This record gives sequence, structure tokens and C-alpha cells, in this order.
Amino acid sequence: MSRTAAVVAVLGLCVGSVLVHSALSAPHQARPYVEESAQITKRGLTDLDAYAMLAELTGRIGARLSGSPEAAKAVAWGQQTMTRLGFENVHLEPCRVPHWVRGKGERAALYSAGESETPLAICALGGSVATPKNGVTGEVIEVHSLEEAAKLGDRAKGKIVFYNRPFDPTLINTFEAYGRAVDQRYAGASVAAKVGAVAALVRSMSTARDNAPHTGMMAYAPDVPKIPVAAVSILGAETLSDRLKRDPHARVHLVLSCRTLPDVDSANVVGELVGTEKPNEVVLMGGHLDSWDLGRGAHDDGAGCAQSLEALSLLKRSGLRPNRTIRVVLFMNEENGARGAQAYAAAPRPASERHIAAIESDSGGFAPRGFGVTANTARRAKIAGWAYLLEPLGADRFSPYGEGTDIEPLGAKDKNTALIGLEPESQRYFDYHHSLNDTLDKVNPRELELGAISMAILSYVLAQEGV
Amino acid sequence: MSRTAAVVAVLGLCVGSVLVHSALSAPHQARPYVEESAQITKRGLTDLDAYAMLAELTGRIGARLSGSPEAAKAVAWGQQTMTRLGFENVHLEPCRVPHWVRGKGERAALYSAGESETPLAICALGGSVATPKNGVTGEVIEVHSLEEAAKLGDRAKGKIVFYNRPFDPTLINTFEAYGRAVDQRYAGASVAAKVGAVAALVRSMSTARDNAPHTGMMAYAPDVPKIPVAAVSILGAETLSDRLKRDPHARVHLVLSCRTLPDVDSANVVGELVGTEKPNEVVLMGGHLDSWDLGRGAHDDGAGCAQSLEALSLLKRSGLRPNRTIRVVLFMNEENGARGAQAYAAAPRPASERHIAAIESDSGGFAPRGFGVTANTARRAKIAGWAYLLEPLGADRFSPYGEGTDIEPLGAKDKNTALIGLEPESQRYFDYHHSLNDTLDKVNPRELELGAISMAILSYVLAQEGV
Repeated sequence: MSRTAAVVAVLGLCVGSVLVHSALSAPHQARPYVEESAQITKRGLTDLDAYAMLAELTGRIGARLSGSPEAAKAVAWGQQTMTRLGFENVHLEPCRVPHWVRGKGERAALYSAGESETPLAICALGGSVATPKNGVTGEVIEVHSLEEAAKLGDRAKGKIVFYNRPFDPTLINTFEAYGRAVDQRYAGASVAAKVGAVAALVRSMSTARDNAPHTGMMAYAPDVPKIPVAAVSILGAETLSDRLKRDPHARVHLVLSCRTLPDVDSANVVGELVGTEKPNEVVLMGGHLDSWDLGRGAHDDGAGCAQSLEALSLLKRSGLRPNRTIRVVLFMNEENGARGAQAYAAAPRPASERHIAAIESDSGGFAPRGFGVTANTARRAKIAGWAYLLEPLGADRFSPYGEGTDIEPLGAKDKNTALIGLEPESQRYFDYHHSLNDTLDKVNPRELELGAISMAILSYVLAQEGV
Repeated sequence: MSRTAAVVAVLGLCVGSVLVHSALSAPHQARPYVEESAQITKRGLTDLDAYAMLAELTGRIGARLSGSPEAAKAVAWGQQTMTRLGFENVHLEPCRVPHWVRGKGERAALYSAGESETPLAICALGGSVATPKNGVTGEVIEVHSLEEAAKLGDRAKGKIVFYNRPFDPTLINTFEAYGRAVDQRYAGASVAAKVGAVAALVRSMSTARDNAPHTGMMAYAPDVPKIPVAAVSILGAETLSDRLKRDPHARVHLVLSCRTLPDVDSANVVGELVGTEKPNEVVLMGGHLDSWDLGRGAHDDGAGCAQSLEALSLLKRSGLRPNRTIRVVLFMNEENGARGAQAYAAAPRPASERHIAAIESDSGGFAPRGFGVTANTARRAKIAGWAYLLEPLGADRFSPYGEGTDIEPLGAKDKNTALIGLEPESQRYFDYHHSLNDTLDKVNPRELELGAISMAILSYVLAQEGV
């Protein structure tokens, strides 16, 4: 792109904000909140404060798995930041969280008779038990589903079961592809243990063809031996699968040093702008403060925390005081327990308080494309009616599914709470998710801010108009 | 994002393809081309061939400025690739192109009395003359517009004029911000020369706060001395501006070794699928094969070439033979002359041939968001009526401006040609544009392919239905 487009753009013809799309063209009526939205947008894109906060969280504190000293620092940072931003009623709400630690020296290698060992890039899945100190060695049996593993019978005895079903590349939304593959990670160990396997390996839940393993939550079924389980990188999975084709007796040696320590006291961080007219009606915005221990938790979910903080701060900096209360919650322990979400929903509140909506950002800090909304038809229609405010940001697509780990307990408690999820562009998220590559350099400051601006606008109109 | 969203997605609730947005909901009527579009999409996302082609072009050939040996190699690559893909009537269409070369040893440094020199990251702008061999030294005078520079009068004599107006960050579309800043780059040298400056520096046209200078086309006005002009990186511009605040007599020493050699023979690369019913009605798709000499021309515009090739190949691989001809043109010399675009529009064609539409991809290989369309109201409405085919791809926004350097001459020749530009997410484009950072690693294979798929679908319905 060079000269001509530039010159034309100089002439102001390249604005791109007026849609040809007749279905979306402006109704000829008053369009409330257009001015406030423009003001919020200009301030956000000028200051880019969401990125500055994310740089602090990922840079000064880094990874912050539940129960770790870094998670405690993140709680303190969240409280200090809310106070600095001038939020009201800033406080912590306690929860007890699991404390799983990776330990040192985890590794894996692939062996065939008469060949040098081939290292495999692996990482323990969150919640896994360790191997014996000297590791576990076994022949490897490759499967592509839990069902296939369950049918292995005696063939799995003493072996390592390797789950290698990739994301379905034909699904446009990568979250859907993740959702259709992640059962291997979550339940693969116990299904393998039931047929006598000594360990399990799972192809990383990733869209990137690289050598970084991606961790994530797993859980053991009751009454089945707990066997160690690790994610193997995409390239590692390809290497392993190729090797098994020419050497069905290839063995893997796996060492994991992880363990689960006693639960730890932790907290959600809460702050708000109190509504002037209906302070007991709450619009909640949030992300989660904890992250996996690899990488820096930049997209997952430092982004959501920074956006929630920035969204409320943008309203404050714009001099907009809402009719209803807008509350930011930085949830603890989304990744491996959701204890923060449960504690928030269960905490005693004034009898008159109700959450009219809860907006979660936990899908990465990429350019926003819209919001998922779980609500009844009338509420959805009302919310979708504000699309014109989000259209200039490119965030005006509404999908019918707004639930997320941290806000679901609120929806379970009160069916009238609209559950809303920010939906950014999804193509890059699982390239980085839960891996050492989830770092600040993968976040674009303007994309991140556009998400915060979208949340600020939507939370404000929700607080003004109700649902 | 972890467990719960994943589990819900496993249950198939997370598809996100049904819009709440009532204005966009499905009309209850036949929706032609839905099956073909789904087929194209699945094939594209499975194969990801656009990325493979882009990897070849940027990896084997690299940067390919007009007139360079690499540009000639790119032409040969384009022709070979079209032949390999089974395109019809593959041929070259000649054009003469300018041949500007950067030369070696370009550099700049900032001096204040009693201080060490501070290097500044710069690069000559395309078309600039060189400095004398030992460079040029002058005090620096900072301005923020051409108008301000023109008013400097004698104060500019013997000095280096430094244009430092940044992109307006409040503009959501970065192309608009670029368009409003780039006059400094294009015309800054001559405006400065007119008031007696010996050289000019221009703040890089960039959204990234880093130290990479961004080159690009400049032009000299007639009857004004030609002075050397370079882009300075954003961090360099900040350093220079800060220094001038405390030392108004700070000097810059600038060395440029660039020169303009005689024009060179080159060519556009052309191939097509001939229409079965109206072969003389052509839908053109294209990008430009040349790039700037820094970086690898991955987003600008290897992406557009790879997408155009892949779009037509996708139709062929899907067994879809169009009613009208779909032609791919890889244009030469978009960056500094548009000679390929002019040659294509001026070339003799059969009298009955007309271009009903021309689709250009030259805004980066990021996730597609829609298309700009320059056409009369009826044609626009017809094209926008196919939004339902592009909605699953997130590429269903239509803006009213579709012109681009390589297709404009076609529009000038025939007002009935609909000019259409692919519009990807714009936030990251100018982070890399025309700099050493425009490399393959900045391109996501799926985002790139989604653009190619969008072009394949739109070109196909245009070829079937006309405009």
C-alpha cells in the first residue's frame, strides 16, 4: 500500500465508517450515547492505558499461578491499581485456592533401538501427579479420542497412551476447535489409567506449529489410579507420531516433578463506581488475575484484567457517572478451580443487590469483534440494539453464547443476569494460550485498548438503561 | 480461558455463527452459494496454501524492489506458480519500471556540543537523492506540517527540516491515520527545499513505538532543488525532538547513498480461469509483486499476491468453473511508480472484453473484516447482498471506498468496473509496513487464508451473477 491510497486518504475519502450494508444503516432517529462513546474512544486510543497496566502485571509480576507468591503479588497489584485509579469500595474478597506446583526438571525423550534419544518438548498438565523420581518409561500407543483409548483394553497395560487428535482446522472460530479437542487434555489420564496405562501424553491444544508445549487443567476421575500426564508440543507430537509409524515399539521416558500442596488463602479484587440512581443494580466487568506458570499470562488473562480496569477508569476519566453501579472484579483461580468465581457468587451481599449483567473478558487481547450474550430474547434484542455504538470499533457482532468460567456462577444464581463475553478475533489466541509464548509482545496496544473501549461503552449503556 | 468454556464448547454451544443482530438475521429464502462457500472455506483452512506460497516468495526471494534482480525472480516465480496451479492463459505483460537503489552505508547521528554522538535509526525514502559522499550536516528545525515548513522562510536556510507529526491515534482505522500523515513523507523534501533546507527528515509512518525506520515513496516537485530525505524511526524521532527542546542548536549528520538508475524492463504476471458463458466479462483479483527493499514484503504485499493466487486456485481445487472469467494479476511496481497498473490498463485487449469488477488485496494479510466497494448504488447493494456468504468468515462489513493503486486505472478507464478492496483488521499493519519488520513471522497462516477464502467467494459470486 503506498502512494495513491495514501493521497486519497489525505482527501478524507478513506474513513470506512459509513457502511454500505443497508441492513446496518443508521435509523433516522436519535442515537443516544454516540457522543459519550466517541469521547471514551478518543481518550482510550490516546492514552492506551490498558497496555501500560498489562505491561506492569506481566513485567513486574509475570506468571501467577494460584497459590504462588506471584499470585499474591498480583492481588496486591490489583488492589493498588484500583485505588490509584480512584475506584470506590476497593476491597479483597477471600477464597481458598489449590496450590499445584510444576517442580523442576520435567522432561521427556523418545527412544528406538539403535538410535540416539530424541528429546520431546513437554510440560506437565495442571493437576497431574509426578512420575517416580527416575521417571516412567513405556512403549507408546497413539489414539485420537477418549473412546479409542477406552477400547484399548489390555493393549494399553504398562504403556503410555498418546492422545493426538488435532484441532479441526476447518472450524473458523478457534475456540470451537479447542472445545472439541480439549476432552483429551481434561480426561485423558483417567481414561488411559482405567485400561492400565502408566502415563499419558496429550498433543498440545494449539494452533501454532511450533515446539512450545501448552499446559492447562486436567482432572482425575474417582476410583482410578492417578497417572502422570503431560502435554507435548505440536512438533513433538508430529515427531512422536512419525516415529511410531516406523517403530511401533518406540519408548518414551517421562519425568514430571509436579505436586499438589495444601490449599492457600487468596482473594478476588473488587472495586466499583457506585451508581447514582440504582446503586444496588450492578453491572459487573471482569477477567482473571491468575495465569498458568508458563509464559506471562498476557493474553490469558492479563488482557482481561487490564481491559476491565481500563474500561471503568475510562468512564471515570471521561466524567461519566453511571446510574447503576459498575463493578470490576479481578477473579482468582480461573485456571485450575474457579474458586474465586464460586466465592464471589456465594459471598453475602445486601438483599436488595442484584447483578443485571456480567461482562467477562477472557478470550485474549486481540481486536474486538463483538460480544456473546446469554440472556432471554428480549434482553438480547435490547443489548443488540446498541450495536451502532460498537460498530465504529468493529465490535458489533453479537453471538448467542456469553458464558465464561468466572461469570457462570452468577448466571446460575440469578437467571435474570445477562452473561456477556467479549469476543476478540480468535485466530491467534491458541498459538500462545497456556504456553511460554503468552507474553506481552504478542499483544498490540491498540487492539487491547479497543476491547477495553468496547467494554466501557457496553457497561455504561447497561448501567444507564438496564436490561 | 480454561475448563468451563471448553467443556461447554465440547457440547457444541459455542459456535458463534448465529447472529443475535436482528438486522443481519437470515432472510427466509433460498441462500445461493452457501454450499460452495462452505466447501471453499473447508478446503482453504485445511490446506493453508496461501501461507505456503507466501513463505516461498518471502523466503526464497525476499525483498523485491522494482528493477532489482529479486523483482525479476518474483516475476518468474509468479509465472511458474500460476502454471503449477493450472491457471489458463498464463503470460507476462511487459512494463518499464524505475530502478532506485538504496546503496550502502546510510546513517545519521545527532550532535550537541560537549556530548557523545547519538546514532539515529534512519533510512532513505524511495526516490531520494543521495547526500554528498561525506554526508550533510545541519542544525535541525522541527515542524509538524508542510504548511509550517513552508512558512519557515529564511530560518530554514542551510538547515535540516524535521517533520514530526505523528499518526492521529484517535482514528480507529490506521489507514486513515496514515493517509493524514503521509503528506510529510511524500512532499516534505521539496517544501523544505523551497525554503532553503539542505535535507529533510520525516518521522516514520508507523504505529509501532520501536526503532525501525519505515521507508516509502517520496516525489520531488519540479523547479525546486532535490534535497536528500530520510525517514527516522519513531524512537529516533522522539530522541531528536527531546534533544531539540534542550539544545535548539543540535545538529544532525546524514549520509545517504541512494540513486536512481535507468528504467528496467519488467512485467505483470497474468493468469485466469476462462468463463464458460461470458468469457469476455472479467473479474480481476490482484496484489503487487514488488516490495520495498527493507524487510521481506510479507504483508505488503506478498500477502495480496499469495491470496489472489490461492483464491483462484481454491475455486479450481473445488471444481468450480465460473460463468465469467476470473483473472489474477500480480502487478509490478505498485510501490514507486504504479507502472504495472498503468501498463495493464493501457494494454490492448479484445474489443468485447470488459472488467466488471477488480478486487485488490493490498492492506495486509490480517484477519479479513470486509470489503471496500467503489461502485454505483445499485451495484453496491447487489454486492452487499452477498454479505451472508462472508459473515461466517467475519468478512461481511462493506465500506464505501474500494479503490487501490493497482485497480484505479481500470476504474478510470471504465466507470462500470466495480473497484473492490479487501479490508483486513488494520491495527497491526503500520507496525511493520515498509520496514525491516515486514516479515513472514508477522503473518498468521489462518488469518491470511481467511482473506483468500473471502476473495475466492466474492470473485466467484461476481463471476456467476455479474454486477
